[in-house]
Amino acid sequence: MQPIIVAVAFVLLITACSPAAVQALPMVEKQEFVTHNFTTFGGEVIPEVRVGWEAYGELNDAKDNVILVTHFFSGNSHAAGRYSEDDAQPGYWDAIIGPGKAIDTNIYYVISVDTLVNQEPYNPNVITTGPSTINPETGAPYGLDFPVVTIRDFVNVQKTVLESLGIERLHAVIGASMGSLQALDWAAAYPDQVDRMISVIGMGAADPWTIATLQQWANPIIHDPNWNQGNYYDGEPPLAGMQQTLGMITLTAMHPLIINQLYADSSPREAAPLQDIRNNFSVVERLQDAARVRATYADANHILYLVRANQLFMAGYQDDLATGLQDVQARSLFIPASNDLLLQPYLAKQAHNTLIELGKDSQYVELEGPWGHLDGVFEISQKADLIKEFLNN
Amino acid sequence: MQPIIVAVAFVLLITACSPAAVQALPMVEKQEFVTHNFTTFGGEVIPEVRVGWEAYGELNDAKDNVILVTHFFSGNSHAAGRYSEDDAQPGYWDAIIGPGKAIDTNIYYVISVDTLVNQEPYNPNVITTGPSTINPETGAPYGLDFPVVTIRDFVNVQKTVLESLGIERLHAVIGASMGSLQALDWAAAYPDQVDRMISVIGMGAADPWTIATLQQWANPIIHDPNWNQGNYYDGEPPLAGMQQTLGMITLTAMHPLIINQLYADSSPREAAPLQDIRNNFSVVERLQDAARVRATYADANHILYLVRANQLFMAGYQDDLATGLQDVQARSLFIPASNDLLLQPYLAKQAHNTLIELGKDSQYVELEGPWGHLDGVFEISQKADLIKEFLNN
Repeated sequence: MQPIIVAVAFVLLITACSPAAVQALPMVEKQEFVTHNFTTFGGEVIPEVRVGWEAYGELNDAKDNVILVTHFFSGNSHAAGRYSEDDAQPGYWDAIIGPGKAIDTNIYYVISVDTLVNQEPYNPNVITTGPSTINPETGAPYGLDFPVVTIRDFVNVQKTVLESLGIERLHAVIGASMGSLQALDWAAAYPDQVDRMISVIGMGAADPWTIATLQQWANPIIHDPNWNQGNYYDGEPPLAGMQQTLGMITLTAMHPLIINQLYADSSPREAAPLQDIRNNFSVVERLQDAARVRATYADANHILYLVRANQLFMAGYQDDLATGLQDVQARSLFIPASNDLLLQPYLAKQAHNTLIELGKDSQYVELEGPWGHLDGVFEISQKADLIKEFLNN
Repeated sequence: MQPIIVAVAFVLLITACSPAAVQALPMVEKQEFVTHNFTTFGGEVIPEVRVGWEAYGELNDAKDNVILVTHFFSGNSHAAGRYSEDDAQPGYWDAIIGPGKAIDTNIYYVISVDTLVNQEPYNPNVITTGPSTINPETGAPYGLDFPVVTIRDFVNVQKTVLESLGIERLHAVIGASMGSLQALDWAAAYPDQVDRMISVIGMGAADPWTIATLQQWANPIIHDPNWNQGNYYDGEPPLAGMQQTLGMITLTAMHPLIINQLYADSSPREAAPLQDIRNNFSVVERLQDAARVRATYADANHILYLVRANQLFMAGYQDDLATGLQDVQARSLFIPASNDLLLQPYLAKQAHNTLIELGKDSQYVELEGPWGHLDGVFEISQKADLIKEFLNN
């Protein structure tokens, strides 16, 4: 396994050995949804919103077999399946989504939607609307004229997509990391439309530590002179800053256990770094290479907007989390990762405890693994049986 | 307690309630040591090295009552005592260093030395030699012509200071964080001169994760255009980069528990950040204010050199840690902090286990507390009795 691949692999999942993937090879295609005059949580109007979406399985006649999968910061709606038979990697949660799998596409209609301000507007498999989109009023990219958006806005775009399909109720909503924020906010915002909610490596609200840590991700872009207050679309983009940011995201999302395993041949006794402080250790070089790859399809402003959406998060968007969650009707399941150093388990525990104190039905169980935050993607199979049972009950 | 003070308080310790501090008010003064033609671990020669040092207690006639205290990244040799009666804060470990305290200055002669490339060359209470020092060959600051230095070089400067005082043997060496690296390397490099070694919040060697994480601290400086390959002494220093770096160091050194306590009034529901992505949350503003204060006496190149010294660390500087520690004679005591997210307890455990496997005498016990890494400074009193017993046996 090449570390460079693993380090960029937020959207990749190693399922080459999965019998279902080999046998069934379910195909999927990105579809486009367009809506107009979308009003944001902050009260601004976006004249036109375009987002991509994917679906797996069949929508039944009652339209009551729908599971919405909400994606993480660096991901998109490609949650499962392959785009073609020679597609090297399936969607990120292919291990649990597919025929006969935990999220069984023989039973459920599984749908996922690219978020607004998606990290990768230049990824041919992503359709999103954000600061890099052409502002119809000016004919140029919005830049910072694009309104600040929130997790609630991602939810509301998804709701509009679902309504266009005649779907009024979710059998379940499930997401990892930033996806878990959307899942929980769905249950808080539209309590009578959500029957089950699964939060993987998630939180109920951004606490001061998380807000401050996410700001570290924004800093390299903001301080790159090429960022130019977000106006770089007709010049040089802030590539150096964006690469630093993406490198930091990778590192924050991974526990020392996996970094030390993947880069075991890097040593404090390397010769070059002792010669000149500008020489890098091999682990640093290789993480920088991975960050360069991750930057290929990314947009710096989009990353800043995603950071902000996460910082602004409090499920239900009331004065406090308990008030925000008071109307939840969904049965809830929280699956944080024990070794997560980013959205540490105490955050999921806090949301779970808040629901319990409100008399709601909530379960809490931790993933184990060496990846840290990324255990929510790479080790999700550990909880496949639990997820299956939770969904089918 | 003002968060801004706490956040910059690597060198401050809240001991206002310490009876010993109030009653005894031991005074201390910074002294200067000069040596010439110092050869670095990397084989370079520094024509003149000047460092500051402090001492508490009395050196006995046999000169065998010496405890060396080695300081952390952002600190200096002001480990205990006050400079004057109206000095607001004593040295950082005053809670355990003084008459009758764990490190009893009625018994021991306690000495500490400012490291090379100290973070704060412009602090009037720091004397150090590094990139900001005038290069006698050019009459201008060294900049990156200053050789890369290592923890071993810090140790060797201390050894030269001790030799100037006729001291040939250490009753003990103790340090926190980067100080623990020096302490362990003392025991590895000069095994017949060190009787006891105490590593607080420390490690035996920098692993790939730690090397990569420390590089994050360097990046904002390196990418600040004002850094200019280290040549900024006759122009604008890379202040924006340095403030980002110092903000990151503060955050990395503190656990969510304390950040969320100190900044509890910051909320994801603040109004300004929803208006414009350039508006900051209050926790971010206040951490940035603290970083600006921390930058007052700091030099950007010195920080880069300190980062590199830590990245290059392997106690004993052999091919692996076990080889490096094989000659250790000191009894060892490792005191990591359970909640440390920077030098996580597994690092101290690894060094401890290596010594045990080599048949050495080593103990391991963890500090508890909300500070994370900084528990090694702020919560050290928890282990005062253990340290006292360890030193007096």
